[in-house]
Amino acid sequence: MAYPYFLRVAYAGGGFHGWQIQSVLRSGQGVLWDALRRLDDQVPMPQGTGRTDAGVHARGQGVLATLSRPWEPYRLLAAVNAHLPWDLRVMSVQAAPEGFFPRQHAVGKRYVYRLGTGPAADPLAHGQRWHVHGAAPLEVAAMAEAGACLVGTHDFSSFRCAECVAPSPVRTLHACRIQLRDGGLDLVFEGDRFLMHQVRIMTGTLVDVGRGRRPAGALEGILAARDRRAAGPTAPPEGLCLDQIWYEARWGIGDPCPFGDQSR
Amino acid sequence: MAYPYFLRVAYAGGGFHGWQIQSVLRSGQGVLWDALRRLDDQVPMPQGTGRTDAGVHARGQGVLATLSRPWEPYRLLAAVNAHLPWDLRVMSVQAAPEGFFPRQHAVGKRYVYRLGTGPAADPLAHGQRWHVHGAAPLEVAAMAEAGACLVGTHDFSSFRCAECVAPSPVRTLHACRIQLRDGGLDLVFEGDRFLMHQVRIMTGTLVDVGRGRRPAGALEGILAARDRRAAGPTAPPEGLCLDQIWYEARWGIGDPCPFGDQSR
Repeated sequence: MAYPYFLRVAYAGGGFHGWQIQSVLRSGQGVLWDALRRLDDQVPMPQGTGRTDAGVHARGQGVLATLSRPWEPYRLLAAVNAHLPWDLRVMSVQAAPEGFFPRQHAVGKRYVYRLGTGPAADPLAHGQRWHVHGAAPLEVAAMAEAGACLVGTHDFSSFRCAECVAPSPVRTLHACRIQLRDGGLDLVFEGDRFLMHQVRIMTGTLVDVGRGRRPAGALEGILAARDRRAAGPTAPPEGLCLDQIWYEARWGIGDPCPFGDQSR
Repeated sequence: MAYPYFLRVAYAGGGFHGWQIQSVLRSGQGVLWDALRRLDDQVPMPQGTGRTDAGVHARGQGVLATLSRPWEPYRLLAAVNAHLPWDLRVMSVQAAPEGFFPRQHAVGKRYVYRLGTGPAADPLAHGQRWHVHGAAPLEVAAMAEAGACLVGTHDFSSFRCAECVAPSPVRTLHACRIQLRDGGLDLVFEGDRFLMHQVRIMTGTLVDVGRGRRPAGALEGILAARDRRAAGPTAPPEGLCLDQIWYEARWGIGDPCPFGDQSR
């Protein structure tokens, strides 16, 4: 018998070469699998929802773990966490319905990119923010205007890296918000799913706008160019966090998607 | 000639054996002095306002640095930071008036103690929160009621450690607020000044109340006992942050004190 569980997993990305398991390098998936095998030597590799890049954090990575015997969810949480290092933690556990697959049934994701501003980088945000140095403060209103141009269904070819293998470059961005927080800026991106490096390239481009290097009105042309060279630099990974994932409502996993199930 | 500057200093406390300089151990004051001496070999030891314990963080340590030549404040900030490690940073600089001394002229301080709750410790708050494990959630209303008993001018003998050498145990606590934040609790303490370990012992006692180990009504008796053994455990240092310091308004340093100048 197989007993599937949905795990919400959080990690501090600085110590991981990304989520996806690799032969030698430390990965979130590999570390979690090691801990699960301490409880159940038949457990197959746990399946995550989104592949985060090396150094990227997560608060809401959704993982399917299939165990060979049933567990009380709170006991499974405590038992797995007892075998995990401090930088990766199972935050919640629920039994998953038969047939649920995280990648296939995800309909939305939220990423948060944290920027630091001002003359000095906050030591208490070290490794969790990209500190943007500069004499002048970022022009937040221009950044918000530029971000609004990205909302909608577009060909995001200008915002994916050369290694991205997604068959289609068309994605739907449902929301792009800029929030003041702890003396810095949080850029919040909600969409159906994202191309490789898409959030980091959108962030790098919005920061160019905030610095006055490009006008907010340039975004339309950057989208239309469908060329990576038209957009700004790729923001570094340490500012990025996979904050939340939504699934089709019929599975009863986590919160319902605020954009509905048809968004993908 | 001597040119005094007021520096607001932030540090991640995990790498320091406290603020105060020590012979061999790494301290905030020592690390800052080393950086200042790279700019000015005659600079005397910089003077902080509050002594934070080993492992305690700061966003608002107020420091007087007296240089032998004048500086543009923004240039001094950049020059000192260029010689500092990532975990201690000068966040702002202003010229200080002649005769200003941080310890003598401080009239108020705010400390924030961050608690983690829930079944698993958040990896992204590692080293900056005390994660309180427990089957039941903390009773926040009872904690707030207990905290309100501490507000006012009291003999805080029950809330200072044996090593505290302050001549008087009487202090004024102006405010004690509990705020939900990032899935945890922030305990905010504002007062004229604090005894050694006072915030950490108040926090440990409020957590006892939140866990149901003591009733909120016990606080009056704990204060009246004037005995350290009457209060709860000393909360660990990593959850504590010296958030802000206020000075007498006549010096024009930072924000005016919300409790007025006569509070101390």
